[in-house]
Amino acid sequence: MPGPYSNVVYSEREAINAVWVLVSTAMIFFMQAGFALLECGSVRAKNSTSILIKNLFDACVGSIAFWLVGYGFAFGDVKSFIGGSPDYFASSGFENTPEDHYLLWIFHFAFASTSATIVSGSLAERTQLNSYIMFSFLQTGFIYPVVVAWTWGGGWLQQRGFHDFAGVTTIHLVGGCAGFCGAAILGERYGKEKDREAKQREGEMNRRQSVNFDNSHHYQKVINHVNKDYHQAFKEWLVNQSDEFRPHNQTYVVTGTLILWVAWLFFNGGSTNNLFVPRANGPAKIIMNTVISGSAGGVVAVFVKARLLGTYSFVNRYDCGALCNGALIGLVSITGCCDRVEPWAAFIIGCIGALFYVAGCKILDMLHVDDPVEAAPVHFFGGVWGTLATGFFDNQNGLFYDSPTKGQYFGYQILAIVCVIAWVGTTSSLFFYTMKRLGLLRIDKAIEIIGLDIAEMGGVGEEIYEKMRRDFGSSIA
Amino acid sequence: MPGPYSNVVYSEREAINAVWVLVSTAMIFFMQAGFALLECGSVRAKNSTSILIKNLFDACVGSIAFWLVGYGFAFGDVKSFIGGSPDYFASSGFENTPEDHYLLWIFHFAFASTSATIVSGSLAERTQLNSYIMFSFLQTGFIYPVVVAWTWGGGWLQQRGFHDFAGVTTIHLVGGCAGFCGAAILGERYGKEKDREAKQREGEMNRRQSVNFDNSHHYQKVINHVNKDYHQAFKEWLVNQSDEFRPHNQTYVVTGTLILWVAWLFFNGGSTNNLFVPRANGPAKIIMNTVISGSAGGVVAVFVKARLLGTYSFVNRYDCGALCNGALIGLVSITGCCDRVEPWAAFIIGCIGALFYVAGCKILDMLHVDDPVEAAPVHFFGGVWGTLATGFFDNQNGLFYDSPTKGQYFGYQILAIVCVIAWVGTTSSLFFYTMKRLGLLRIDKAIEIIGLDIAEMGGVGEEIYEKMRRDFGSSIA
Amino acid sequence: MPGPYSNVVYSEREAINAVWVLVSTAMIFFMQAGFALLECGSVRAKNSTSILIKNLFDACVGSIAFWLVGYGFAFGDVKSFIGGSPDYFASSGFENTPEDHYLLWIFHFAFASTSATIVSGSLAERTQLNSYIMFSFLQTGFIYPVVVAWTWGGGWLQQRGFHDFAGVTTIHLVGGCAGFCGAAILGERYGKEKDREAKQREGEMNRRQSVNFDNSHHYQKVINHVNKDYHQAFKEWLVNQSDEFRPHNQTYVVTGTLILWVAWLFFNGGSTNNLFVPRANGPAKIIMNTVISGSAGGVVAVFVKARLLGTYSFVNRYDCGALCNGALIGLVSITGCCDRVEPWAAFIIGCIGALFYVAGCKILDMLHVDDPVEAAPVHFFGGVWGTLATGFFDNQNGLFYDSPTKGQYFGYQILAIVCVIAWVGTTSSLFFYTMKRLGLLRIDKAIEIIGLDIAEMGGVGEEIYEKMRRDFGSSIA
Repeated sequence: MPGPYSNVVYSEREAINAVWVLVSTAMIFFMQAGFALLECGSVRAKNSTSILIKNLFDACVGSIAFWLVGYGFAFGDVKSFIGGSPDYFASSGFENTPEDHYLLWIFHFAFASTSATIVSGSLAERTQLNSYIMFSFLQTGFIYPVVVAWTWGGGWLQQRGFHDFAGVTTIHLVGGCAGFCGAAILGERYGKEKDREAKQREGEMNRRQSVNFDNSHHYQKVINHVNKDYHQAFKEWLVNQSDEFRPHNQTYVVTGTLILWVAWLFFNGGSTNNLFVPRANGPAKIIMNTVISGSAGGVVAVFVKARLLGTYSFVNRYDCGALCNGALIGLVSITGCCDRVEPWAAFIIGCIGALFYVAGCKILDMLHVDDPVEAAPVHFFGGVWGTLATGFFDNQNGLFYDSPTKGQYFGYQILAIVCVIAWVGTTSSLFFYTMKRLGLLRIDKAIEIIGLDIAEMGGVGEEIYEKMRRDFGSSIA
Repeated sequence: MPGPYSNVVYSEREAINAVWVLVSTAMIFFMQAGFALLECGSVRAKNSTSILIKNLFDACVGSIAFWLVGYGFAFGDVKSFIGGSPDYFASSGFENTPEDHYLLWIFHFAFASTSATIVSGSLAERTQLNSYIMFSFLQTGFIYPVVVAWTWGGGWLQQRGFHDFAGVTTIHLVGGCAGFCGAAILGERYGKEKDREAKQREGEMNRRQSVNFDNSHHYQKVINHVNKDYHQAFKEWLVNQSDEFRPHNQTYVVTGTLILWVAWLFFNGGSTNNLFVPRANGPAKIIMNTVISGSAGGVVAVFVKARLLGTYSFVNRYDCGALCNGALIGLVSITGCCDRVEPWAAFIIGCIGALFYVAGCKILDMLHVDDPVEAAPVHFFGGVWGTLATGFFDNQNGLFYDSPTKGQYFGYQILAIVCVIAWVGTTSSLFFYTMKRLGLLRIDKAIEIIGLDIAEMGGVGEEIYEKMRRDFGSSIA
Repeated sequence: MPGPYSNVVYSEREAINAVWVLVSTAMIFFMQAGFALLECGSVRAKNSTSILIKNLFDACVGSIAFWLVGYGFAFGDVKSFIGGSPDYFASSGFENTPEDHYLLWIFHFAFASTSATIVSGSLAERTQLNSYIMFSFLQTGFIYPVVVAWTWGGGWLQQRGFHDFAGVTTIHLVGGCAGFCGAAILGERYGKEKDREAKQREGEMNRRQSVNFDNSHHYQKVINHVNKDYHQAFKEWLVNQSDEFRPHNQTYVVTGTLILWVAWLFFNGGSTNNLFVPRANGPAKIIMNTVISGSAGGVVAVFVKARLLGTYSFVNRYDCGALCNGALIGLVSITGCCDRVEPWAAFIIGCIGALFYVAGCKILDMLHVDDPVEAAPVHFFGGVWGTLATGFFDNQNGLFYDSPTKGQYFGYQILAIVCVIAWVGTTSSLFFYTMKRLGLLRIDKAIEIIGLDIAEMGGVGEEIYEKMRRDFGSSIA
């Protein structure tokens, strides 16, 4: 189907920009590996394959959904709310448009698949895979593209001067909000409630004791052993870790974080789509801001999280996960305004981002919303702060600078937060709630106890499974 | 040794293309990490270091072989079958040629090292390392370069209009075919035959039971325990996994797959070597096709593999490995024609690719060819399908389009498959068979039982090893 | 704060070079993941998170230090020894300079963070984290920038024609030297001395026995079991590995090495900062040299290390770690001269590099300097050899070529080695020694025995910890 623009060849300037976008696209897609490692390392070992397969489905189903419908909704001649021009669905008319929509498609596909992957973390360890696949299609094919239509596709927010450079609102707030709603509707993981209560009791009994030393009966075991054999005691302690709610592999968590960080340099820097911009808004400064904000977030989070949450103790001094998630919220926070802030502002934005992360952890804990990988604190709360930060620090229209329209500008940033939460919250909650009523959202209690990797991915005979199902009950309200 | 072209400087257009090729080269080399992780995760833990060291040798020995001789055979003024101009061996005359052979060398080195690495997977867990190193040299220095001379170096296939854009025939079919021959000549891993028979017996006894629950005695143990203590039963079950023929770490498998996928975007997109091509054949569309075909392959494979092979059951619903290998065969299948097909064709090619993968698994199983990482189903069968798919879907000469020469074009695609299999099959089988006769191909039975990591890479005293060797017998026919 | 150069836009040539530098920067930053995996895999499991968090701090603290002060010392209008122009501190005047210092900052930040990360390996498993963070700030903010001022910032060495293309002296010698001094001042890990003595005794008793089979009591256990149950014997053997001084995960080591290798192609190739250079010194040839030198180093090291150190035996034939570190020293060695040597010279440089690595291991062993990840043999000894190699093989000024100034050129290479070691050795030793006197350098013996991950990162109650502290004594001289 050769269209009128089939034989167009790049000019030199277009080619230079194309190289930058092509490389950035592939490296943003590399985020899939980063999220897979981060999430896999953060869950319990017995559910590690189940979270990996979700991330793979995000990439596979997401690309097909975004190809068939998502891109059309996001960019198909958007009037105000949503696009619909047939040329943009299933790439059917990409050669009928003067713009190079192949290049735009791959770049925005890489973004779209990220938005879905964020959700998988919040729903980890207890969601039926079929439901998740359906949600992934819905998210990449509809919920997310509508927001893109508003902010980047020429829709109502963009028309009013709303600024979201590389997707803090469009991607992170959307993904984080959907994850939050899903986690809230799903309910906590089996055993989490008891674990939380045990922690509180122990905390009252002994304030100085490490908060990560979770279950009192394990604690007693170690105490009993400690007089005879340290080595044995620690071995037992390690064995008993396996069912506790803690990351099962920090190496995966850290490697995943570093991959995400590297990819983020392309995520933000590549969003210029153009090398021929003023130095003050160019990719080099953007990458500098991104590095500084991420660093600031990491350092602040690792030093304040345990102290603010009251879990600090001499033997719980350093929290590697807080450093990772702090760096990530620093990266999230700068995503919206990295093209229009100074490095000192990036530093402040990252530091405050870390506080939003800690507040997010606290609030989720109070609401009993169980997010195994802390995706909602990072992406939801980070998405809110990053959108606000744009309103404050933007050196063209921000509240801290002189611009006649800065009040209006700030107002649209807030309106965007409200509308995106309303849209994503409503649509995703509707989906999750419907699936819940149909009994398709949450896995059986029996599966949750033995772990998804064994129960669904081969390994145990059906008779045994049926027996466990009968013993443990077949569902959790 | 300054040659006449030492001081040549790129034009702007050349520099733009050079940046694209340089980045693509480095990212294709990143495939070494992807294959290392994928293969390491797919074998048993006791042989994990042994497969890693093979992948490292592929890179190290491959670069030296390709530098000394391979590049000369592939590109040294090829008449028809093989090159031989001395300027191209050991890069001795790269500054005497107007073309930038430094750039071409690094790009083709990255390709060549991939071709060797594919083989290491098929031979895993039972090949003597010294033999493997020799094969790696032969493959990168001679077998593969000859095929390159035919298809890309100006040889007889290229002269007749044969099209292999990014190496489906040249790299994947070559690597997959050599791996298949090696695995067939090596024979199955120790214990595999018994394992297969046990599975068949159990399958007859209880069709509904999970196929991955491998050994009946393990099954009995769990049954015995299940009335007293689930927890204990599953722990025993997990311990007994260690000697079963299944991937030992899915995180490595998935991370490796995602790294390969990212690198594949450069593998295919970078093969343009040129940004100044018509939009309909440019790198952006190529990357779009690559993403869609890989996604389609993954989704189809994960849903059909267990059903087609009769191993599906309620407790074996999702197969993460099938999703990974399905995505990979989707990527292989599109490699040959990604510059000349439409996205809808890429979708179909990926879907059919998944069926070739399943067929490959079935055929290898029937032939009792033991390929621990399923490299032959993916690269050999994928290579065949990808070469055929070019003949069908190529929008310039394919059977589904109007071109006067399409019949002839399709014929050369088939001829290429036949000739490549004949060439690689003969040369690699000759090598493997000779080594087998000399007793240098397969490791001792004793080493196979205790695992290569312990037996060859330090850890056990020689006395113990000698005793085991006497007890188990020193070789396997 | 819009400066006079805020609105400068790249020319096409500048944009081409900028794309190359931007991509290289991000991929050099990816080295953080490579070092994290390599170092984590090389230490004992009980300290794996502690080394990961150090690497994260390197990136976070390093970026802030380099932003606030480091870049100013390195590039702030250097007269001879150090820079000081206020425009370069905290990026305060980047828009007052015609040069694009945003781009230079991100590129040199990626380098600077590498220099600090090298040190973390040498100090692994026994350093207090707070001290390490302080050192990381000092290294990235002062020690390393001063050397940059000398070699790249326009300082005295650069003025005299000293050549260090991509940082063999400036980064690897600096990092390796600081690591060596730190490791020497810290002292050996607890148990290392006994382990070394046991090895020597066993070595005398039985020359043929594998050196990696570390402790004689484990050996006896296996001997006792071997007559009844192989399987059980090997399981016990594996369990007892956990406290031995060997890498705990080879997959991490190899993946980390391959990531470093990929990043190194950008590290060296990207250091051109410019595509418009003569072919004989261009990025393609640089990458070719880098690949060949790394490969040569890997192959030589894996075959000679065990033989030269006398640890070779039939059951200890292949040493995956030696292959990795050999490849790395090959990469280090070529870093200084990759723009001005021929591929054959790269091959020789890599081969000799491997000998320097083996010599480094031997010398550290003789000096009882305990470097858990062999960072000093690779980066310190490789840094020395790479700086010398530039003096020998540089095709413009090297001793093996005809140049009137080659003697003087070689002299400055040697002077650079001496001065860098003097500067880094003095400053870093001063820091480490002061911290040691203050009791802030080394962790408690009790923590060392139970492992940093448990003792400092949550998991054990304070009572238990205090008891252990009393039993084991609270410090190690």
